[in-house]
Amino acid sequence: MDPRVAEHAKIIVEWSTEMKRGDRVIIRASPDATELVVALSREIARVGAHPITLMDLGDASRAFIDTADNETLSEIPEHHRVLYENSDVIVSIRSPLNTRAMAGASPEKLVLLSKTMRPLSDIVLSKRWCLTVHPCQALAQEANMSLEEYKDFVYGATLLDWKEESKMMYRLKERLEKHSDIRFVGPETDLYAKTEGRIWIASDGKHNLPSGEVFTAPVEDTVEGKIYFDIPFLQRGRVIQGVRLTFEKGEVVDFSAEKEEATLKSIIETDEGARRLGEMAIGTNRGIKRYTLNMLFDEKIGDTIHCALGNAYKECNGTNKSAVHVDMIKSMKEGEVIAGDEVIYSRGKFFWER
Amino acid sequence: MDPRVAEHAKIIVEWSTEMKRGDRVIIRASPDATELVVALSREIARVGAHPITLMDLGDASRAFIDTADNETLSEIPEHHRVLYENSDVIVSIRSPLNTRAMAGASPEKLVLLSKTMRPLSDIVLSKRWCLTVHPCQALAQEANMSLEEYKDFVYGATLLDWKEESKMMYRLKERLEKHSDIRFVGPETDLYAKTEGRIWIASDGKHNLPSGEVFTAPVEDTVEGKIYFDIPFLQRGRVIQGVRLTFEKGEVVDFSAEKEEATLKSIIETDEGARRLGEMAIGTNRGIKRYTLNMLFDEKIGDTIHCALGNAYKECNGTNKSAVHVDMIKSMKEGEVIAGDEVIYSRGKFFWER
Repeated sequence: MDPRVAEHAKIIVEWSTEMKRGDRVIIRASPDATELVVALSREIARVGAHPITLMDLGDASRAFIDTADNETLSEIPEHHRVLYENSDVIVSIRSPLNTRAMAGASPEKLVLLSKTMRPLSDIVLSKRWCLTVHPCQALAQEANMSLEEYKDFVYGATLLDWKEESKMMYRLKERLEKHSDIRFVGPETDLYAKTEGRIWIASDGKHNLPSGEVFTAPVEDTVEGKIYFDIPFLQRGRVIQGVRLTFEKGEVVDFSAEKEEATLKSIIETDEGARRLGEMAIGTNRGIKRYTLNMLFDEKIGDTIHCALGNAYKECNGTNKSAVHVDMIKSMKEGEVIAGDEVIYSRGKFFWER
Repeated sequence: MDPRVAEHAKIIVEWSTEMKRGDRVIIRASPDATELVVALSREIARVGAHPITLMDLGDASRAFIDTADNETLSEIPEHHRVLYENSDVIVSIRSPLNTRAMAGASPEKLVLLSKTMRPLSDIVLSKRWCLTVHPCQALAQEANMSLEEYKDFVYGATLLDWKEESKMMYRLKERLEKHSDIRFVGPETDLYAKTEGRIWIASDGKHNLPSGEVFTAPVEDTVEGKIYFDIPFLQRGRVIQGVRLTFEKGEVVDFSAEKEEATLKSIIETDEGARRLGEMAIGTNRGIKRYTLNMLFDEKIGDTIHCALGNAYKECNGTNKSAVHVDMIKSMKEGEVIAGDEVIYSRGKFFWER
């Protein structure tokens, strides 16, 4: 086994989820993640916890969605619910056989299913959970890389000294929390929101691995201005590119996309909450040098910011509710992040780097 | 997709487990069974049931067992228990990546884990459950076949008209239950047992798929005579061949084997119950043309009978108790099955075929 797989498993068990004796663990994995599942099983046994592994299989989910009627897609399966409720830790490994398995599925059915499953996601969020990636051909392909190259990319972003990264992110968090608003300024962009009463969270490899972002939920009805997201992103099997949003009193009042505008429209029209921002964030992982259409990495790229339409994290004291949470990223090499009267970040440098 | 995979899934959902709207279904599958998982997901959606798929991964189980301490191996994980308890149907697909992943594991730990997990097996047995096979390289290798050849073998045995097979098996069961004894006669063979108060069970593709056997537990101390089992079988990692057994008052009083007699001896000497027959059965699946050292198939071969030393099934009203249940098979192309004064089967033909 590639020693990096074992190291990855060790970080998940010891740093990210802090597993301990007796923990009931759910692993969610695709057939392409078997090496990491094996390594995790060993580390989980070492601490005396108990794993159960669920198979994520895009083609199976697709066959289910294509065939099931709306009655079926509206029911929460009770056995799923009790499984999650009776667990302590959930490790979700993204390692799809094919990133586009859902591309042709009915958007209405996808929305319905995601609404139905919302209470399950809420249960997961109330536990110790970690979302990570195992390098596979499909993700390498999506990232325009060979598998070997992609492994270097993933482990370069993942196998960091998370204790040190954490210190840096907490410094940023504490400074942001001295102020009560946030402003992203840059090309075609001037977006403002209040952050009073909200918490900035340092995402230091606990819930996301790799991680490297400091994020909050803006006060919902205070978001004002416009923003241009220059980095493409994948949603519902489609690559959406060049999104422009304009906000008034917290709501999207105008939008456009250079590619897949219809998909963007269907996201914004999902529900009331999908018209509002659930998240504003700063990426800090400089081990990630480029976007790969994988949000777990892209939103963490050093020298970027991102915003998400839809559901807000309760840990931030966010109140926005939605069935969706769609992140969109902007490069900040030409931009500034301002909080109150302080320039937190400017054109490649944080305040402590100047 | 090979249309036989879709047909297999249809039989599992409609015939074996009779799934219906709202059923909470567990699928247990290895990464090599993904095609069948996809086909099952479609059929499960069609009836309005809800699947969850657990990943069976030999190397992960092995890593867990090798690393876990006895305290961990003695605890039933609560999240496993509630998942099984809150389900209606369990479909277990055998399709290992490697049939020998457990070969080098500690026998003591394997026994401990199997004892710990016994209550979970009992829950499964109390539900609608089905054990089936998806053709994979590891099983093909075990059967000395290429994968293509093995697919023909598996589907030839599995994709039968189970309604018709069931009718035939129930006809056989009902006739056998009119009598109060059973006799297997053939080359070097004349074995007699009483069956009064015992139930003959028609295994018609519900719990095992493929299936095709009608079996009972003989009255333990009435087994008399001798029998020659000409079909080899795998036990404790050894191929045992040409077994001859002689019974008096239900107990083995003489035995020999052309190959692996020492292994046969160790089986018979396991405990008191291992000297007695726990099962006598007639194989009815004529889609299975040859043995493959896989008991799920071999004991079902048409025109064979089999007997098992050791533990008896409670559903047959059997009372024999043993730590072992070792099936041994005999070709009956030259033999007869007699119940009371009636020839039930003779040289390739059941009573209704003459």
